[in-house]
Amino acid sequence: MTDAGPAPEPARRPGGRNARVRRRILEAAAELIARDGIGGLRYDQVAELAAVNKTSVYRNWPERTTLVADALTAFGGGAAPLHDSGDIDTDLVDFLEAVAAAAASPQGRALFNVVASARENPELRAIVDEVSDQRQATLRRRLHLAVERGELPAIDPTFLGAMLTGPVQLLVSRGSRTFTRADARRVSAIVLAGVRATAADAPVVE
Amino acid sequence: MTDAGPAPEPARRPGGRNARVRRRILEAAAELIARDGIGGLRYDQVAELAAVNKTSVYRNWPERTTLVADALTAFGGGAAPLHDSGDIDTDLVDFLEAVAAAAASPQGRALFNVVASARENPELRAIVDEVSDQRQATLRRRLHLAVERGELPAIDPTFLGAMLTGPVQLLVSRGSRTFTRADARRVSAIVLAGVRATAADAPVVE
Repeated sequence: MTDAGPAPEPARRPGGRNARVRRRILEAAAELIARDGIGGLRYDQVAELAAVNKTSVYRNWPERTTLVADALTAFGGGAAPLHDSGDIDTDLVDFLEAVAAAAASPQGRALFNVVASARENPELRAIVDEVSDQRQATLRRRLHLAVERGELPAIDPTFLGAMLTGPVQLLVSRGSRTFTRADARRVSAIVLAGVRATAADAPVVE
Repeated sequence: MTDAGPAPEPARRPGGRNARVRRRILEAAAELIARDGIGGLRYDQVAELAAVNKTSVYRNWPERTTLVADALTAFGGGAAPLHDSGDIDTDLVDFLEAVAAAAASPQGRALFNVVASARENPELRAIVDEVSDQRQATLRRRLHLAVERGELPAIDPTFLGAMLTGPVQLLVSRGSRTFTRADARRVSAIVLAGVRATAADAPVVE
């Protein structure tokens, strides 16, 4: 009952004890979503796994959808780093290899399950779109830089992002074998060669 | 209670009354999986929706996983026809447009949900792999023909299939806007140009 007493401090002040409690709660929520899906997420189980009082969960996240979105965003953001070595081809191979590893992880499976089950529910769908958008933002920024530097023709980075990550997610979700660095190299090489070869025909949808 | 009496004929004889009953049951099961997922599929609801006795469902499908697999295979197979006009580029645009339409349908969402939730369960995973394999078989055959005719360089048709359908499934599941024929044309053009441009480098993994 450590958190059930009066709480004069603001619930969301940055840093300090509450920041640590919040992080523990988000980690627990992410782990439970990975195990049970959004539909099975229960505040009492989150509190138990995070070793906090249930009141702490409710006080920080009165809305269940906000808890889900924050938990998914917290682990989704850093799942696949994308470096800027100056060579887009190499950086994309590194990135797609990291995407495959993240998609094969429990957290990655959780997000995949969430996306799959969220389409019927407008509220959940908005959450998933936001989380997915944050995950794709790094890729879009890096592709935009490559276009500015003349490494790639001008092309809608969202569309190009789907061309790159769609095959990876499909091959990983099928899961008949491990997705290798050679696979990442082939996906990247085919897509980049394809956009370079078709640059004159492709409309820019930005 | 029309089906509850003694049944001297084999339960799975082709054609005739039982074939019609089986088709109705599979359609009902597919519709319910689309609505409730595999986990929510109940034999009594299947029987009610198909307007047959529950005994008919149990007699034809004593195993729940077989009912799921047969229902998914029955509607998954014809979801995206792939013609052979002799021109692989045009045929693939038609195919990807059909894949997008199928993925956006209730049945397509059901399969997507099933795939997402099945990875944790080895038995379900085997079902989904089989269904997915049947859905991809048409594509692989058509790509193989194109390779034989010299329209495409020799490349693993399963990998190429993922390169083509992965972006489509990702863009449809994101669902921020309708996937158009122009999108199908861009995906197909980029991938085919890419495999043709990188043919010399790409190892053949078949």
